Amino acid sequence: MELLEHIQETGSISAAGRAMDMSYRRAWLLISELNHMFREPVVESQRGGQKGGGAALTPFGEELLRRFRSMETTLRAAIADDLDWLEANRSAAKALPDKA
Amino acid sequence: MELLEHIQETGSISAAGRAMDMSYRRAWLLISELNHMFREPVVESQRGGQKGGGAALTPFGEELLRRFRSMETTLRAAIADDLDWLEANRSAAKALPDKA
Repeated sequence: MELLEHIQETGSISAAGRAMDMSYRRAWLLISELNHMFREPVVESQRGGQKGGGAALTPFGEELLRRFRSMETTLRAAIADDLDWLEANRSAAKALPDKA
Repeated sequence: MELLEHIQETGSISAAGRAMDMSYRRAWLLISELNHMFREPVVESQRGGQKGGGAALTPFGEELLRRFRSMETTLRAAIADDLDWLEANRSAAKALPDKA
């Protein structure tokens, strides 16, 4: 999802990968896998042209990203009390995964 | 959490580990890590005695397990619509992680 956000911002798979310290190959493979995971593609590449192509989220990709971000918020809110309880009960020495 | 449930059922770290195809050493290390992750222990071992010891969840461990199971239910319910949407949009070829 972070990679999708970077593609949204940069319009490029390689720039999005760079922003996440990821090789172009790895970014491309991830997107290819994501594209085949659903009934429609999530990212569309435009090859050629003066700018040497580019990439953009499809309308389906936009909805997927929106839903994931909304799910994150919903999930966090749904168990806010439990997360507080866990935080209150963790040992000082050993941190639980960060809430942020 | 599954390991904790097996300890609850069997009263033994080694039997709980066996139920999950896990070595005693690995089960013990996981429990030890969990015990140090919180302000109070999650599992208590009783050494010695005729039965050669045993293990049980502490009241805190019981609450931890109860909360995790309740969180799972809450989380699933909170995003039921999104999970349905994902399921409806996944490709036939490539399965998403199982809902069960």
